[in-house]
Amino acid sequence: MEERKEEDIVKDILELIQKKEMNKLHKVLEGIKSADFPAIFEGLEHDQIIIIYRLLPKDKAAEVFVELEPELQEKLINVFTDKELKRVMDEIFMDDTVDLIEEMPSNVVKRILKNIEPSNRKIVNELLKFPEDSAGSIMTTEMVELKRNMTVDEAFQIIKKTGIKKETIYICYVVDEFRKLIGTVSIKELLISERDVLIKDILEDNVISIGTLDDKEDVAAKFSKYDFMALPVVDKENRLVGIVTIDDAMDVMQDEATEDFEKMAAMQPTEDTYFKTSVFTHSKNRIMWLLVLMLSSTFTGMVIEKYQQVISTIPLLVAFIPTIMGTGGNCGSQSSTLIIRGLALGEIKFSDIFRAIWKELRVAVVVGVILAVVTAIRIFLQYGSSYEGQVVEISIIVGLTLILTAIVAKIMGCILPMIAKKCKIDPAIMAAPLITTIIDFSSNFVFFKIATVILGL
Amino acid sequence: MEERKEEDIVKDILELIQKKEMNKLHKVLEGIKSADFPAIFEGLEHDQIIIIYRLLPKDKAAEVFVELEPELQEKLINVFTDKELKRVMDEIFMDDTVDLIEEMPSNVVKRILKNIEPSNRKIVNELLKFPEDSAGSIMTTEMVELKRNMTVDEAFQIIKKTGIKKETIYICYVVDEFRKLIGTVSIKELLISERDVLIKDILEDNVISIGTLDDKEDVAAKFSKYDFMALPVVDKENRLVGIVTIDDAMDVMQDEATEDFEKMAAMQPTEDTYFKTSVFTHSKNRIMWLLVLMLSSTFTGMVIEKYQQVISTIPLLVAFIPTIMGTGGNCGSQSSTLIIRGLALGEIKFSDIFRAIWKELRVAVVVGVILAVVTAIRIFLQYGSSYEGQVVEISIIVGLTLILTAIVAKIMGCILPMIAKKCKIDPAIMAAPLITTIIDFSSNFVFFKIATVILGL
Repeated sequence: MEERKEEDIVKDILELIQKKEMNKLHKVLEGIKSADFPAIFEGLEHDQIIIIYRLLPKDKAAEVFVELEPELQEKLINVFTDKELKRVMDEIFMDDTVDLIEEMPSNVVKRILKNIEPSNRKIVNELLKFPEDSAGSIMTTEMVELKRNMTVDEAFQIIKKTGIKKETIYICYVVDEFRKLIGTVSIKELLISERDVLIKDILEDNVISIGTLDDKEDVAAKFSKYDFMALPVVDKENRLVGIVTIDDAMDVMQDEATEDFEKMAAMQPTEDTYFKTSVFTHSKNRIMWLLVLMLSSTFTGMVIEKYQQVISTIPLLVAFIPTIMGTGGNCGSQSSTLIIRGLALGEIKFSDIFRAIWKELRVAVVVGVILAVVTAIRIFLQYGSSYEGQVVEISIIVGLTLILTAIVAKIMGCILPMIAKKCKIDPAIMAAPLITTIIDFSSNFVFFKIATVILGL
Repeated sequence: MEERKEEDIVKDILELIQKKEMNKLHKVLEGIKSADFPAIFEGLEHDQIIIIYRLLPKDKAAEVFVELEPELQEKLINVFTDKELKRVMDEIFMDDTVDLIEEMPSNVVKRILKNIEPSNRKIVNELLKFPEDSAGSIMTTEMVELKRNMTVDEAFQIIKKTGIKKETIYICYVVDEFRKLIGTVSIKELLISERDVLIKDILEDNVISIGTLDDKEDVAAKFSKYDFMALPVVDKENRLVGIVTIDDAMDVMQDEATEDFEKMAAMQPTEDTYFKTSVFTHSKNRIMWLLVLMLSSTFTGMVIEKYQQVISTIPLLVAFIPTIMGTGGNCGSQSSTLIIRGLALGEIKFSDIFRAIWKELRVAVVVGVILAVVTAIRIFLQYGSSYEGQVVEISIIVGLTLILTAIVAKIMGCILPMIAKKCKIDPAIMAAPLITTIIDFSSNFVFFKIATVILGL
């Protein structure tokens, strides 16, 4: 549905441009949300995009600009006059300015910095200094600051005067004469208070804040724990330096989840979207882990090689290698995924390790026995007549291997991510691929060992 | 650090209870954020929790209550007098009431309904009717409604009178005489407007809303696209029935990501946290896929069985089965993960399928060739002396298989999730385990087919 709608809008716009019906075009553009423009621009030529972009009102033009892909932003800046560029830069928020500067090539950055208000240029330069994954790098410096001894009425004066330029005014921050953060006041509180009440009498002094150098992942976790709209960022002396707003925290959360998905599928995370990433970068992100895991599988191969005698005794046993490896891998990745996600959401801690092992052990026995019984039945049905003499032995070997493999796999899948966490390694790299490779080795070892014993070799 | 801190707080609290220093205890409790109570309660006995809970001020008691696990909520309700229960129910938001009722056993539900205001009881009953995954099921009915012809001053009167009971007042909704949604006004806009301006002159009439029956996943997607604080929910006649706030949307996003992680590791998603889920439920959620995947591996076994002649010609080839299966599986899950995540975030659409195949094909050739060369070198180093006569043939067979497997795996990993999406099946089930099992079959087939040709069998 939505795709169709966008195409229709593009068609309408092109028609109106051709007919030069600028009034109608204005109206159509007004009805489109800023966040929808990137999708609409996709169906248009660059010249057409520039025409349309120039028809947007000032505040909308800035909103649309920050939604665009860096590639298109660069193209637009290159056709902008200095006046046009300045108009955009005056409207967009400080954190978006910083993001933009980080994406653009140096010649464009120079032009951007030239067209920022000198006072803002200083702030932007400060913001650019924060490390990539820090709270400082995603904060904005545009918030409403109040003093303890102001009245509610004075607070409203300040909000009215400066609030429109601030990214969020729903929570105001109260600072002392050294700019130290001493409390917050929500607009809700201000609105229901009498006009002559003092800020210090309604402020909430139990404030949760974050340091400029804190990991942005922790920031996102705090948002989802405490249901904040914005979180104040303070320096080492507890002086207020900025805020992180909930929309930026939401983006961080999405990005972190994507990163975990990528790490858990044995890839180095990428910054760009799938299609924006080049074939070279895709290959580079994937080859490292593929090589490591492929070379590790050599050890599993060596186990199989060592037990050639088993294979020559019952050649059919080779046909069960995929079943055992596959089941072991799946058992392990089920456990590791649950543990990794639990660790990421803070539901599981390292101190829970024995509780988790005990739980996984019981689950492993239950599923292991079911898998063994079903496989035994399958073996009787499939080979009962053709391998009459060996079918019992084969069932016992494969069945026992499945139970033991389920136990080993589930316990490894539980322990390895927790140990990684304890060693300050991201547990996500202990996901399916690595666990599977480790379990491949042990499941084959168990398989051939049991076969050797049962066959009396 | 945080764990330590919680333990300290618990120790302080217990000491103060013992010494009966209630004033100090009050102060300590005041300084604790509502969201931190569940962690603190974990270290306490039920009797102690009840004592502490009863010391909390009215509004905080309600805030803490909604943060607790259902188990503890039930225990508290059972010791509450009707008066205490009513006090909590009066304070908590409508959507939290509905969540609570859905979790509690029927005898507790009866007591809860008895202690809700009659007017609210009707609303709760309406809310309970919405399907589990719908926008209606996560919305609240507590929002500020304005009329077109009010002035800004009148709007503030309404907010002041009713706003404190409303879940969010930062965006107000403008409705006509039939309660149809005609626009929104932010508090920001109200604050910077003159007091005699009419609402109709400042309202934003280009409102994005959602239907009561829309999927809550779509709701979360709209939040992250448009950076909303709250989203209005309307019925079929476009009448305003409620709002979804950003904190609830964030929870939905987290839950959806967790669900995807679970599906992608071949499990049925669970509602509860890891430790809350029983061994039986854990086993039930995992066994289904394990059985399906295990039985599917029979086909791979049949391929190996069919080519026993190859194995008897060069027994060492069996030792490469783990390498080929593992690498194929990893190649496939890399691609499927990227595609599944791209589809979930809306970055990839079904119409991109040929672009995606083309990209994966090129990546597959690059990584396939590298893997083949590295493996060939490994084979020469490992077996160069012991298998002198066959080492070239083995290298060619394994190398060619790796290249072909990489190509098949990456293209399947790309196509299958997209087809699932097109067929309205959740692409997440096409993740690593299923793809790996499918690729196990084709990679073994390719391996033995190539071996047959090269060995001239």
